[in-house]
Amino acid sequence: MEGSRAHRRRVRRSFHTRSLTRLNCAGYRDDALHRETRRRSPNASPLLQSQRVSLSFHIDSSTGKARTGRLLTPHAEVSTPVFMPVGTVASVKGVSQDILEDLGAQIILGNTYHLYLRPGIATVRRMGGLHGFMSWRRAILTDSGGFQVFSLNELRKVTEEGVTFRSHLDGSSHFFSPESAMEAQIGLGADIIMAFDECTEFPVDRARARASMEMTARWAARSKKYFEDHKHEVPWKNEDEGTSRGHVGAAVPTQSLFGIVQGGMDRELRKESAERTIEIGFPGYAIGGLSVGEPRELTREIVESTLEHLPKDKPRYLMGVGTPEEIVEYSNLGVDMMDCVLPTRAARHGLLFTSEGKVSIKQARYAQDPAPLDPNCGCRVCQRYSRAYLRHLYASNEVLAQVLNTIHNLSFYLDTMRRVRHSISLGVESRFLSSVWSRPRP
Amino acid sequence: MEGSRAHRRRVRRSFHTRSLTRLNCAGYRDDALHRETRRRSPNASPLLQSQRVSLSFHIDSSTGKARTGRLLTPHAEVSTPVFMPVGTVASVKGVSQDILEDLGAQIILGNTYHLYLRPGIATVRRMGGLHGFMSWRRAILTDSGGFQVFSLNELRKVTEEGVTFRSHLDGSSHFFSPESAMEAQIGLGADIIMAFDECTEFPVDRARARASMEMTARWAARSKKYFEDHKHEVPWKNEDEGTSRGHVGAAVPTQSLFGIVQGGMDRELRKESAERTIEIGFPGYAIGGLSVGEPRELTREIVESTLEHLPKDKPRYLMGVGTPEEIVEYSNLGVDMMDCVLPTRAARHGLLFTSEGKVSIKQARYAQDPAPLDPNCGCRVCQRYSRAYLRHLYASNEVLAQVLNTIHNLSFYLDTMRRVRHSISLGVESRFLSSVWSRPRP
Repeated sequence: MEGSRAHRRRVRRSFHTRSLTRLNCAGYRDDALHRETRRRSPNASPLLQSQRVSLSFHIDSSTGKARTGRLLTPHAEVSTPVFMPVGTVASVKGVSQDILEDLGAQIILGNTYHLYLRPGIATVRRMGGLHGFMSWRRAILTDSGGFQVFSLNELRKVTEEGVTFRSHLDGSSHFFSPESAMEAQIGLGADIIMAFDECTEFPVDRARARASMEMTARWAARSKKYFEDHKHEVPWKNEDEGTSRGHVGAAVPTQSLFGIVQGGMDRELRKESAERTIEIGFPGYAIGGLSVGEPRELTREIVESTLEHLPKDKPRYLMGVGTPEEIVEYSNLGVDMMDCVLPTRAARHGLLFTSEGKVSIKQARYAQDPAPLDPNCGCRVCQRYSRAYLRHLYASNEVLAQVLNTIHNLSFYLDTMRRVRHSISLGVESRFLSSVWSRPRP
Repeated sequence: MEGSRAHRRRVRRSFHTRSLTRLNCAGYRDDALHRETRRRSPNASPLLQSQRVSLSFHIDSSTGKARTGRLLTPHAEVSTPVFMPVGTVASVKGVSQDILEDLGAQIILGNTYHLYLRPGIATVRRMGGLHGFMSWRRAILTDSGGFQVFSLNELRKVTEEGVTFRSHLDGSSHFFSPESAMEAQIGLGADIIMAFDECTEFPVDRARARASMEMTARWAARSKKYFEDHKHEVPWKNEDEGTSRGHVGAAVPTQSLFGIVQGGMDRELRKESAERTIEIGFPGYAIGGLSVGEPRELTREIVESTLEHLPKDKPRYLMGVGTPEEIVEYSNLGVDMMDCVLPTRAARHGLLFTSEGKVSIKQARYAQDPAPLDPNCGCRVCQRYSRAYLRHLYASNEVLAQVLNTIHNLSFYLDTMRRVRHSISLGVESRFLSSVWSRPRP
């Protein structure tokens, strides 16, 4: 029974992968059609009729530990390894969705904690989920809120049942459990959602790390149970069919829930966490609890050792990293998905990533510099504006500074990942990128 | 001599009007070419070889007092009546130049006072003027700084020689005279620049209004003298020719200086001001000193009476107005050019103009409203996003709120002007627009 269902899914998948690929190649035509249908109802975000798969992952090529692949989600096909721009409250700060599409973003990330507080899950659900609410027709991943609540620090209290926390907006008290975090994420309707986990602080003693890892494993099981029982409540709309509610069946795709490996900076705990999470069983696995203040060498060591214990045929998502050098490095280690606020946050502080190194655009040295920010960059910012203009916008506190800086930094990250995928597909590890990048600026 | 030069200009104008029109119709091709040339030097803003005219104004059609026309400037042809978005410090707040182009903005306004303070005239001049600095290849108009300095109120001191004022940025002391305001505007290199004037406060007694109007007339003469002596110092670059400096001759276009009519709310003083300004002689005339707190009926009365004294064959620019209703109304009175911060500033405060009336997007009633902001609007915001999403962005203080709101409001203004021009060309006064617009929202 299980086997035959899997077989049917495989057949469907191979069909849909082909048709989706064709669709992406003719993106303009699709967009024009889509704009036409939106004319009457801008918040509609119908699933394409051809998309009947919840998740499939196909590895196309590999070099050493690195691999390229295609992650097929209900809303879009994603080429991996992929970097996911962060759109915390249903907006990648300063960048409109059409520009994100132009940049080639295939999947973006939303933060459950923030969206739960504002505008609230019910509102997003009523608007057809995040896809409908923010009018984004490609893939979305939401975090579980666990890490965000962890970041609140003084404002939270953790028990076996879940986490009580205070809103950073108004101080009001709220409670997240694995069940309520799943309920929230189902309401948001992202293509990929994350198990509710506890992220341990750094440094931490071994007993605390073990206890936390074990609770995360129990929470993963509870997350999965709730998700399996409620996954058909996703607010996606199928054209001609109304919502998917009441149309439960093999033909209707659902979200996919990924598990998260914790265990602090302890390789043994990480191994045990991986094994326990795999035992529960998820279609994809994330490595959480890193980039919490530990030295970068340690991050790399934990990533490398944890990856050894994760299934090779499933997508592997390293949460919350990193610099341009790091996303190349982790891709080479076999990571398939990454996200980080760095490109967008740094942009807001005038820190720009270029093929010649980092540029702090606020510096007076750029005040009369007629050159493009990055002479090797094809983005709409580098093609049109000078460093002098970008410096002026930043110095004058103009909103356009944030807009243009963010567009460039995202373009740099997404271009970097395109080059990484290209290198891997040619059988070459793409370390050259990071070495070029760390050269001091002339 | 004068006659034969005018004849040569007319011949040139009719030729260049045709070639420019063709260029505008094939905008995409031109843009692609332009992007290609920018690849090496993003701040270059060469004049097109075909553009050899400083200014020409051709009236195409008229209905009652209203008229449509084409204003040919060195950088672009502008269809009139036109609304000019305000880009105070070389940026229309939140909107990138490519989107302004998409919106159909043919001419934008820069503020000399702000640009003089930051980034400074020398920097802009070195980058090829405002066109090169901000990478805007269509037309630009700069104000003289007079109105901005007038707005400083407590921070200024006016004498016959000029105005001493303190910077709103750092309190440093500066001095603008007709001569230095021209020097600054020539350095900024806009297609159209404005005489240095004094804007009188409202209300004001007749003696003060007369004295101010008379000084403005003397300043206009000084502005013109300085401009005529220095107009070839404009920092525009002609491809293959280097800068226009040293290439003084009939073939090199210069900026055009417009005179400004003042006189407070006194029709007789306005008439005298118009006559004295015309006697000095300018290729275009502005009506300044309105929208300074007077009732709207009075503004209209002064505009209407002043227009009677301005030459019909020259462009007439009403400074600093207005609401969507007003720009329609003033177009019907025969105004050719207008500018106002209202669409951009209101957008930042969540006040949006639609075909169904004003929308305050912050209101809770829009929190779950799936409809587009304006069902009759074809802009990229209304085609893609719901009121619920726009309301969420505003409530969450997201930068994208300002970006999208501004794009819509500018689109509404520019669409309104397109409809006005169309109505006039059909021989219909376009009052219907304002009456539709003031209907209460359903």
